[in-house]
Amino acid sequence: MANPVEFYFDFSSPYGYFASEKINALAAKHNRSVAWKPVLLGIIFKTTGMAPLPTIPIKGDYAVRDFPRSARYYGLPFRHPDNFPISGVAASRAFYWLDGRDPAAAQKLAQALYRAFFVDNVDISNADNVISVAGKLGLAAAEVQAGMNDAAVKERLRAEVADAQTKGVFGSPYFILDGEPFWGSDRMDQVDRWLATGGW
Amino acid sequence: MANPVEFYFDFSSPYGYFASEKINALAAKHNRSVAWKPVLLGIIFKTTGMAPLPTIPIKGDYAVRDFPRSARYYGLPFRHPDNFPISGVAASRAFYWLDGRDPAAAQKLAQALYRAFFVDNVDISNADNVISVAGKLGLAAAEVQAGMNDAAVKERLRAEVADAQTKGVFGSPYFILDGEPFWGSDRMDQVDRWLATGGW
Repeated sequence: MANPVEFYFDFSSPYGYFASEKINALAAKHNRSVAWKPVLLGIIFKTTGMAPLPTIPIKGDYAVRDFPRSARYYGLPFRHPDNFPISGVAASRAFYWLDGRDPAAAQKLAQALYRAFFVDNVDISNADNVISVAGKLGLAAAEVQAGMNDAAVKERLRAEVADAQTKGVFGSPYFILDGEPFWGSDRMDQVDRWLATGGW
Repeated sequence: MANPVEFYFDFSSPYGYFASEKINALAAKHNRSVAWKPVLLGIIFKTTGMAPLPTIPIKGDYAVRDFPRSARYYGLPFRHPDNFPISGVAASRAFYWLDGRDPAAAQKLAQALYRAFFVDNVDISNADNVISVAGKLGLAAAEVQAGMNDAAVKERLRAEVADAQTKGVFGSPYFILDGEPFWGSDRMDQVDRWLATGGW
């Protein structure tokens, strides 16, 4: 059984959103599943000294121009969120709560949260909005809320972020294929070839 | 007459080297010429607060792994230079000296300098090594040396870096097509489509 493609992303990352729309089909082409792993770049940036793209002089302006242009290039809808960047804590906790019960449903929730944020301008740093998005997938509000507040779920998120740091994850999206790391939605062509060939 | 593709690069940038091997053929496909513009990211980074990739914790380690892997992906030879990163001042001055006489020859010099640095491990921050590389293209050592020391050439480099900053250049390679900016060797697929379609 081949290892799943590890897919690390932050819910505030436009490039993570682009990857979330492509990675399952890309992996499936090569008979691979995908292990989705939301992380919190705000914590990881404390180690690397990096900062959210929009806060960097000049490069931030370029990024804000590149987001919608790359979305159109990939054929994906995109609207720059009014509140951006945001904390992915609420969305990530909801994800890991559901992942503990049903990983496939958790992936669908992650995609729905990304689309809510980057297409419908819903602020998913707000727990009530996360509950609302989950509700459209048939998840009961009380259960989602209890899940996000569960101490074990909070600990799971902390442990996943720590594990990602141990593995060298420093940006979003970040893919690990059988130990080989690739950073960025613009590395998906290399991910494709690596899965086809096992390396070069 | 279509505008040339503006191609900004730093002589210490592996991704600039990759682009230098591809951009002329890419532009020619679309009946465009290329205006080569070496810049000094060390100066530009003072504005943006960015740092050379290898100096960034974790991300730097990834970059050092990505350089040869991306080179192989692009089908290009690559050897990580022993002295890296370096100052591109000497190489850039030699470039602009020659560009003032013969832009096509200056492009060939830039390619030869990049290959000397990233394939043959020649430290092109050393003016004597720049002169030696230029010599293999038939340029007289005394003329190259005088060119690098010419006050007008030094001023040209300063002016080009300042102009690049004005245009928003913050990394290498950086392309501007009819005013539209693209950053990174991994945006060459978008550059290709933009030149074909005029935008999307």
